[in-house]
Amino acid sequence: MKTSPSTASEIEEEVLARVRPTPEDGERIRMVADSILTRISDLAKERGLPAQTMLVGSAARGTWLAGDHDLDIFIATPKGSELDDALNLARAMAPEHEEKYAEHPYVHATIEGFDVDLVPCYLLENTSSLKSAVDRTPFHTRYVLGRIKGLEDQVLLLKQFMKGIGVYGSELKVGGFSGYLSELLVLRYGSFMGTLEEASGWRPREIIDLEGMGTLSHGEPLVVVDPVDPKRNVAAALTLDKMLQFAASARCFIKGPSLDFFFPGRIRPLTDEELIKIMEERKSAFILLEVSAPPVVEDILFPQLRKAEESIRALLTRNEFSVMRSDVESAEGLAWVLFELDVWELPRIMRRFGPPIYEGDHLSRFISSHPRPISGPYVEGGRAVVEVKRKYTKAWDLLEGEMSKLSLGKHLATEVQKGHSIYVGPTLTKVKVPALRTFLARYFSRRQRIC
Amino acid sequence: MKTSPSTASEIEEEVLARVRPTPEDGERIRMVADSILTRISDLAKERGLPAQTMLVGSAARGTWLAGDHDLDIFIATPKGSELDDALNLARAMAPEHEEKYAEHPYVHATIEGFDVDLVPCYLLENTSSLKSAVDRTPFHTRYVLGRIKGLEDQVLLLKQFMKGIGVYGSELKVGGFSGYLSELLVLRYGSFMGTLEEASGWRPREIIDLEGMGTLSHGEPLVVVDPVDPKRNVAAALTLDKMLQFAASARCFIKGPSLDFFFPGRIRPLTDEELIKIMEERKSAFILLEVSAPPVVEDILFPQLRKAEESIRALLTRNEFSVMRSDVESAEGLAWVLFELDVWELPRIMRRFGPPIYEGDHLSRFISSHPRPISGPYVEGGRAVVEVKRKYTKAWDLLEGEMSKLSLGKHLATEVQKGHSIYVGPTLTKVKVPALRTFLARYFSRRQRIC
Repeated sequence: MKTSPSTASEIEEEVLARVRPTPEDGERIRMVADSILTRISDLAKERGLPAQTMLVGSAARGTWLAGDHDLDIFIATPKGSELDDALNLARAMAPEHEEKYAEHPYVHATIEGFDVDLVPCYLLENTSSLKSAVDRTPFHTRYVLGRIKGLEDQVLLLKQFMKGIGVYGSELKVGGFSGYLSELLVLRYGSFMGTLEEASGWRPREIIDLEGMGTLSHGEPLVVVDPVDPKRNVAAALTLDKMLQFAASARCFIKGPSLDFFFPGRIRPLTDEELIKIMEERKSAFILLEVSAPPVVEDILFPQLRKAEESIRALLTRNEFSVMRSDVESAEGLAWVLFELDVWELPRIMRRFGPPIYEGDHLSRFISSHPRPISGPYVEGGRAVVEVKRKYTKAWDLLEGEMSKLSLGKHLATEVQKGHSIYVGPTLTKVKVPALRTFLARYFSRRQRIC
Repeated sequence: MKTSPSTASEIEEEVLARVRPTPEDGERIRMVADSILTRISDLAKERGLPAQTMLVGSAARGTWLAGDHDLDIFIATPKGSELDDALNLARAMAPEHEEKYAEHPYVHATIEGFDVDLVPCYLLENTSSLKSAVDRTPFHTRYVLGRIKGLEDQVLLLKQFMKGIGVYGSELKVGGFSGYLSELLVLRYGSFMGTLEEASGWRPREIIDLEGMGTLSHGEPLVVVDPVDPKRNVAAALTLDKMLQFAASARCFIKGPSLDFFFPGRIRPLTDEELIKIMEERKSAFILLEVSAPPVVEDILFPQLRKAEESIRALLTRNEFSVMRSDVESAEGLAWVLFELDVWELPRIMRRFGPPIYEGDHLSRFISSHPRPISGPYVEGGRAVVEVKRKYTKAWDLLEGEMSKLSLGKHLATEVQKGHSIYVGPTLTKVKVPALRTFLARYFSRRQRIC
């Protein structure tokens, strides 16, 4: 019988056995990458374009996790030329593709089982004249490639740890650690365990400056000065909570190492019965707003969903309801904002507080603006009070009634106008999308490995 | 057809016609008072006691309202003698009496249709060696008697105005203006209308010092330096809200004089049907705590009721329920504390917030003290959060369950221990006491003449 690993180093070995790409994987990824790079170079020559291609990202640095099939290939054109030329090369290279948009348009295609991004950028001598964030990527790859040799396993361990605890990924949906950031941490602290040791003592406004290029005065929770561009914070997308969750999980792992940090149990989508049972146990009120997802990338959609979440929370709070927790999700062409309330129903009457009694003019205006109160006016705590009818006694009626006045992001507002659904309590079971059910399962079981 | 009075002076006349005692009333009150005073003097002589008797209060000053049948008679014994001697004189004077207790015991009896208080006190030359509050009363009567001649009607108007709007009476149940205070205001401002004019501009911390004896540094809303004892604030028992209510009603009367200020409609006790209808309209939650009233005077009972009100409010608020309004009442040997809630039911789960994540030791303790949370621990806003079971999801269960731990006044605590009832919502109709129904009617219709 195989015993499960229990010391940190036994666990590290076991993790690496699972996430380290085999030599065959490496061979295959290089072959596919080379063939794409060659084809683009050939196309460029045919068209007389002075484009250079390069493999960037974890595949280029030897720090990709087994099972990842992502290839990031940049097509660089000289300063002064058109990015569109590079984009056309990408289009020609992968006739069956999807066009996406970050700061600039790029091409996404599936080639021989790999998810390939073909990204136009400018060819620059140094980072002093960057035109967009992607122009920085080749410099990152060069910086890491020159230093990471021999530390690849440490990066794999750190990435898988971050994945396992749910803080990996710098996309705005996650707000966690990017691959480049995890590499820099390993370069700075020498190893996976060295990074955990250091991170376990992190406080907000931590600063890490590998090349001693002077500190940035960002207000962000973690500042990691970009060695190739000292004006930039590599950890700009990292939220305070993900940073501190990583710190607390690091502490927790050092105290009691376990494979579970790296490979937590899979979360299953909830069945109707499970969902109803959990809601009955919690005895809170759930409101789910559902709209069609606007046709934009997640990095544009999620900030708009969060903005909607905040607008609705403010609306509810302003009207004396109380939100316990909320979250957002998007999948299969739909987007959701979920609210769990601890106060969802209020009396028909509400109190309105007027000015201090001795402010005679204010008081007169206040009283004449409430000509027929249910009770009042009366004096309480030195102020005038009237009791009037509340327009909405239920949180969901308020949301439905005031939806059109909410301040929402541009794309999301359009979708809400076109149509939306509000599900309350047990009617949530009407939404059968498995991704939502998995999201709800994660919402309810929410348990982080912190200590 | 008689037209109703509309100018302030027409209204004053009409009020005086109703509240000014007739010459016959005056004759009768003097006869009854004289006969009591004489009898006590005779008794004192028989016993060889050097007691002096005197009529004090509004009857002595000619400022009593028609229909009032109160006589306050003081029995003064020289400094150094026993107050008990005076008390025994009172007992002998009125064999059928009730003994009451303020700072000292006194005797209350009904004599020839009058409510007579026979109050022992010390005979003092001046107010520098007062032994208790009642010793001050003869000096008040002397001060007012020497100055009030010709202003009695103004005092009657002011008292009736204060009665009508509900701010008359310095007993702790009311927290309003005493008769002596209303007399001092008329002496200071020359008339009823003069007092309203001045009061309409009152702000908290107003100071009135008739004899220019220097200001007191009390923190009270209104300070009226006692002309016979400059260390004392005549308005010490006046609450901020009653003071400001008077100020706002004064302003209101000046703008639009009306007889209604003096004689508001009578409040009828609510029937079961009315009570239920109002509660259904408000859709708030009512909790009524009922106990036997402890055998103490209202000036001792009401502070204890208010203390209970505050303790219960704090208990509810601490547990995330929300009290909209509350009040206390006592009648017919019972005492009540009433709560109207806008949040009365909460989910089964509640969130507990732990320390900031980076306080490692605190965090460990927090997490190990919640070994099996329903959700969590997770990081939110930089802190650890767990979701645990709430013990009480209904406000009334909380009150019933934690009643024994509440900090209550001594006498009230004894009664609560002996037994109490909690009525929720429509079960309030089980309490049939008319005084409570009138109290509820006033609670619901609560409408003060402020503008």
